[in-house]
Parts: sequence; C-alpha cells; structure tokens
Amino acid sequence: MRYISIHRLNDYVGQIITLNGWVHTLRDQKQMQFIILRNPTGMVQASLEKQRNPALAEVVSTLTRESAVRLTGHVAQNPDVRLGGVEIQLAELHIENRAKSPLPIEPFGKDLPGLEPRLDWRHLDLRRPENRLLFQVQTTVESAMRDFWQREGFIEIHTPKIMGSASESGAELFELPYFETIAYLAQSPQFYKQMAMAAGLERVFEIGPVFRANPSFTSRHDTEFTSVDVEFSWIESHVDLMDFEEQWLRHTIFAVRQAHGEAIAEHFGSEVTVPDLPFPRITMEEALVRLRERGYTPPPQKQGDLCPHGERLLGENILDDLGHEFVFLVDYPVSVRPFYHMRYPDNPTVTKSFDLLWKGLELTTGAQREHRPDVLAVQAKEKGVRLKPIQYYLDFFKYGCPPHGGFGFGLTRMLMILLGFKNVREVTYLYRGPRRLYP
Amino acid sequence: MRYISIHRLNDYVGQIITLNGWVHTLRDQKQMQFIILRNPTGMVQASLEKQRNPALAEVVSTLTRESAVRLTGHVAQNPDVRLGGVEIQLAELHIENRAKSPLPIEPFGKDLPGLEPRLDWRHLDLRRPENRLLFQVQTTVESAMRDFWQREGFIEIHTPKIMGSASESGAELFELPYFETIAYLAQSPQFYKQMAMAAGLERVFEIGPVFRANPSFTSRHDTEFTSVDVEFSWIESHVDLMDFEEQWLRHTIFAVRQAHGEAIAEHFGSEVTVPDLPFPRITMEEALVRLRERGYTPPPQKQGDLCPHGERLLGENILDDLGHEFVFLVDYPVSVRPFYHMRYPDNPTVTKSFDLLWKGLELTTGAQREHRPDVLAVQAKEKGVRLKPIQYYLDFFKYGCPPHGGFGFGLTRMLMILLGFKNVREVTYLYRGPRRLYP
Repeated sequence: MRYISIHRLNDYVGQIITLNGWVHTLRDQKQMQFIILRNPTGMVQASLEKQRNPALAEVVSTLTRESAVRLTGHVAQNPDVRLGGVEIQLAELHIENRAKSPLPIEPFGKDLPGLEPRLDWRHLDLRRPENRLLFQVQTTVESAMRDFWQREGFIEIHTPKIMGSASESGAELFELPYFETIAYLAQSPQFYKQMAMAAGLERVFEIGPVFRANPSFTSRHDTEFTSVDVEFSWIESHVDLMDFEEQWLRHTIFAVRQAHGEAIAEHFGSEVTVPDLPFPRITMEEALVRLRERGYTPPPQKQGDLCPHGERLLGENILDDLGHEFVFLVDYPVSVRPFYHMRYPDNPTVTKSFDLLWKGLELTTGAQREHRPDVLAVQAKEKGVRLKPIQYYLDFFKYGCPPHGGFGFGLTRMLMILLGFKNVREVTYLYRGPRRLYP
Repeated sequence: MRYISIHRLNDYVGQIITLNGWVHTLRDQKQMQFIILRNPTGMVQASLEKQRNPALAEVVSTLTRESAVRLTGHVAQNPDVRLGGVEIQLAELHIENRAKSPLPIEPFGKDLPGLEPRLDWRHLDLRRPENRLLFQVQTTVESAMRDFWQREGFIEIHTPKIMGSASESGAELFELPYFETIAYLAQSPQFYKQMAMAAGLERVFEIGPVFRANPSFTSRHDTEFTSVDVEFSWIESHVDLMDFEEQWLRHTIFAVRQAHGEAIAEHFGSEVTVPDLPFPRITMEEALVRLRERGYTPPPQKQGDLCPHGERLLGENILDDLGHEFVFLVDYPVSVRPFYHMRYPDNPTVTKSFDLLWKGLELTTGAQREHRPDVLAVQAKEKGVRLKPIQYYLDFFKYGCPPHGGFGFGLTRMLMILLGFKNVREVTYLYRGPRRLYP
C-alpha cells in the first residue's frame, strides 16, 4: 500500500511504476498531454504523446483538476522538466474520483480566497502542502510531549466532557438537556485532573477537547479546542512545575526541529529555535517595573495582570535583555487567579502560580493547587463561587489528597506561536465558532 | 521529586530516606506504632518505639487511614516484616492531608462495597493498585497504538465534537442550544475522519470522546466514551484494513505483555497472549454455517448479523478449531451496515466490511467506504437517510476523494476484553450514564 516517494523517482529511472495522487494541473495540447500529479511526497509530471495511445489520451482529456487518480508509467529522465528532472511516460490511468469542475474555491496559488470560503471548503483548503505540514507538526508535538510524559511515569487519562455542574465559573458554559436533568460541557479538565491526584495516580496528562460558549469572533477565540493538561503530585511548590515544563517543552521543540525544521523554514519562513534551560523567571512585580521603565502602564481593569500588549512588550524586553524567547511570569496576585490556586503562607495576596510567555504570547497557565479542603472552601467563598455545585470537587480533598499542581494550554495556541499563524481558525482541523458549525 | 521505589528499599538499608504515600493501615500499640505506607511503588512498614520520640508518637496517634503523608526514617532490615524484610524506623512525619474518618467507603479488602457507592467515591475506589494498573495498561495501549501509527506515517487529528447535524443516525443524539441555533454532540468522528481523506491527509488517527444519548443501563453502555479511530486512503479493499489492523493489534498487545504481563497475571489472574498472524478470517455466511452446525440459529431480528451470544459461540468455535482468540468476520449484508459502507460490485447485497471478534466479543468494526458521491447518495436514500443534513458530507466526495476505509472501537471495550472486566463502568475513569453525572 505504501507508495513510492516522488522525491526518490531518480532511483526508478527505466522502471514501470504506479503512483497515486491528485491532478494538480493538466495541459492538454495538440500532440502532447501533461499531468502534474501531486501527492504528500511531492509533485511529478506525467506525459503522454497522444498518437501513441489515442484511447488513453481520450481518458486524460476528460480529467479535471484535483481528481484523484492512480497512474502507471515508465520513469524517464527529462532535463527539461523542472520537477527533479524526471517524468513519467504515461501508460495507464485509473480515475478513482473525478473532481467536478469548476472547484468551489481555488485552494492553490498566491491569491487565496478569504478565510470564510476556505473554511466552507476546508477539505480543499487542507490540500495545500503547508496545511499538511501543519498537522504533521501537530502530530510530532503531541508525540514528543507524550514520550516525555511516559518516560516520567505519567498516566494518560480521559476525563468526562459531560459534567453535572460548571467546572470553574458559570460563564461561557454550554448547557444541554440530559435525560431528566441538565448537564454542561467541560470548559477544562481541571477538577478531574485534580481528582486523579486524590486518587493517587500521582502524574497524569490528557489531550482532549474543551468547550467555551464564547460569543466573540476574534482571531484567538473558538467554542471548542484541544486542551493539553498536566497535573502531578508531591510537589514542593509551583517551581517544580516550571522545572518540569521547561524541560518538557525543550524536548518537544527539539523534536519538531529535528523532524520538520527544514520544511517549516521552506513553508512558513521561520526558524525553530530550541530554547536554552532554564527559562528566565520573573515575578509579576518585576515585570511591571520593567514595563514601567519602558513607559508602559497596565490598564486599570487589568490590575496585577498584563494585557496582550503588555505581554508582547515584556517578551521583547526579555528577548533584548536575556536573549530568550520564553519567560515565566510568576506570583500573580490573588485577584486575577481562580480560587483553587494556592497562596503564599507569608503573603496571602499572592498565588503560587505562573504564566509562560513565548514570543510575547501567553502559552500556558500553571499553579500549585490548594489541597487543604478548609482553606479551599474559604477561598472559593471569597471569590463568590457557590460551594454546593462544587461539593463533589471539595470532597476530593477530604481523604488524603497530596500536594499537587499542574498546567495547561490550548494546542492550537502552541501551533500558532510556533509557526507564526495569526488566526486560530487556520490551525484548527475544523474551527467551531458562534456561527460556524459546518462542515 | 521522583522518590525512591519501595521495591528497592533493600538498597537503602542503613540510610535515612524520605517517602511519600498514603497511610494504608495504622496500629497504635502500647509501646510501638506501625504505619503501613502505600504508594505506587509498593507498601512498607514504618515503626516507632513511642518512648524514643514521644512528640512524634503523639503526631502518629492523630493519623487516620488514607491520610497523605511524607515520612523520613532509617531503613533497617527486619526479618519479621513481611513486606520485603525491611522497615523504616520513623524519625519525622509530615501530614500533608489528614483524611477525615471514617472513610465514606471502604476501598480495600475482599468485601468491596457495591459499584454505585464506589462510583460515588471514585477517587477512593481508584486507590486500589489494580485500578492504577488498569490506567497504566490504558496508557501503554494508547502509546503502542500511536507508535505504530506514527511509524506508518499517520497524522493525528482532533475532529470537532460539536456538529451542525447528526453524523450517522438521528437516534441517541445529544442536542444542545448553540447561540442562535441547535447543535449536536458527535456520536463518532466518522464523517470527519473521512474528510481527512478528501483533504489528502491520507492516513489519520484520533483518540477522543464520543457521545451517545443512550438511555440503557446495561453493563456495556455509557453516554460518553473514548473512541479510537483510524482511516486511510488508496486501499484496494477492506482486506488492506484487516492486514493493517492485525499487525497493529499484535504490536499493541505485545507492548502490554512486555510492560505489564506479570502485573496483569498478579492482579487480574489472566495471561496476555500475543496473537499469531494472520488472524482467521471467515465470511458472515461461513460463520452462520459453523454456528448452525453447533445448533445455533440467529434470532430473526438479527438477520444477517450475530447477537452477542452468537459471537461468543463463534469465538469458542474458532478457538477450538484454529486455536486463535481473534477472528475477522467479513462481508456483512447491506441490511446491517450503514449507508457509507462500500458494496461488492458483483454482489451489491454484501458490504466490503468486517467486525473483529476477540474472545467472542466484538472489538472493532471496519469497512471500505463508498467514495463515489452518486453511489453514496443512492445508498443513503435507500437507508432512509435524509440528504440535506449531510450535504456537507456528500460534498467531501465531489472533488477528488481517493478510495479509503477505516475502523474504530471504544477504548474501554478493548480494556474490558484484555483484562476480563464485565462492566464498562469499572474501566472508565469516570463513567457517565443516564443517571450518573457526578463526580
């Protein structure tokens, strides 16, 4: 089933071979016909001198662009051909699926249609080689992350996406009729990955969907995305999480560079830089000092936090000062963190938490969790969280839950930063938004 | 952070070490105190002669079963101790999280409570070592499957779980309000993994949740489970799928045996048998002949298919006759297969499809798909499927979709068969059913 790689056709000169692929272009001239065949391994020209096989020529002339075909022919050197100096002299052609003509969108070339028609015809949009590369990179990213986890003894879990009550806040929650009652779609696996700690699984990870009923149409929002989540026990503090995360990310980025560095440079014009360890770490307080020195004051509604603009400035500042693309921003004030983030015993207005910025964009959020049930309940009440709906969660901490913490992020976010995409819709297999349920 | 394995404590005799874990049992005697500490690496006894450290003895006496503790002490040989002949002479104890007493359920011992209370307190139920092993096996299974896929050039996809219309049939569908309209939860990634074929991704896999609004309470049903899905292009027929699947499963089972064979024998009393290749393959027709010879006639409502009882009998028959735990059952009649299964050109009442039985239980379902849009539309109409809601799906086949096929199954199903569990609720991290939304 595995077919011959077009890159290696030179090894087959003089032989008869069969190739599968799509008709990238067709030129039907008076005497000659030329098909450019495209498949994941590259592009190659197949040619036919019409009078040598008029019956076949007739079939070829019925071809349309993007038809799926299986063709057989003689591999011949032809220095006039740009694609590797070889071509196929066509002997047989089987049209597996003839594309209707014209195509509903033009998926190739410099003048691509707008994003909406491309999303309408996502299966054609995905045929561009850079989109294939995008999902190859995603595959490598996930694989490298899991390899690292597994080497470190992590267990893979699949937490339920249907919940009896909201996980974090009541906002942006999808609600659905569920037999005699009502259920909610998980906004994150937060509570359930913490349950794994209470269950003694000690180190877990999950890559799975989460749902946000967010009505915004920005380039960073979607209603469903793939969340990457990690949680582990017996930590001393959030510092252990950062120590882990930076090694894990370095391993992942290294794997991407090894597997796709050249292709990324070719298709996305960017270099994959494997980061040095350790990543710089600065407190939120220090970050604000650095930014004020550069004339930036955070907007009042973002007290104690950074807006995307501030994050970008800080990213630049760290790159200039320390030559690093990453920076851990630690010790966020309680006001901007959820109730379950642990606070410093000697400074209870500050949480043992961090964000990781990459190229000035927020990649992950992490924290040590509060595992003492009484403290947790007090913190929840302070934040206005009703205890009754989360009673099941508070129960996790009553019968011997070890100290623990973790972090999480959206997989698309990582791909956007890594490859320089500006819109989450482009890096999602099938984007979902308030007005986008198809295909 | 990685702590010392209890299995290797003999290497630490004479040293002071720190261990994390749970108080499995506590014996507080007149002169001596004994803690059995449990963690993922095993169990060990920690002892304290009270008069040597009365302050510490007082802390120990406040301990409760299942509390999470960090203890430090001297490793000493003690031939009287059953647990490896070593014990810890307690010097320090830090109670990270004191368990309330009594425990709401008893998670250990021979007389476990019923399933419902155990599911109510799943985080305690999961503390039994065999449950930890279950999720370690799951982790190994997924890892081995992905390794094989990746070696074969597969791309990992994450298809949307929120859909604009039903994927296969209107039955058992969760519906939810979605901004100005209504959406549905995916019952399978079927249509979207086929889209990847139309997109030219050629070989894809996904492990992710699917949802079924099934009101039944049987031991085999749940409303949410993890589906394992594979799809690939340019196949000649469903035979290519079976050739792939049996190698892939053999690789996976081999990995489980390597990593956990001994532990599975110890905890589940069963041996993991790595299957020989190829797996037996018999047509549905032949299966019915075999079963009739054994006095079995399929119930009339199951015409052309097997009921679970028939599958069990056939599994036994194949094991007796051919000595194999697996059997591919091929060529199901059109009547029992969905509209998108391809039919034989010379026998259009039979589909190019298969089920794989393992130990007499259905594991996977697979088929070559119909990729010709006109034929597909006719088959859908014949099955009473309305074309309008699936128009987006039919569109996948209009612009050059290669021949393709795939298979899928529930991950819990595999674990149940592999480890001999009888109830899906036991092998799911957190089971969801019509009346089960918590924890």
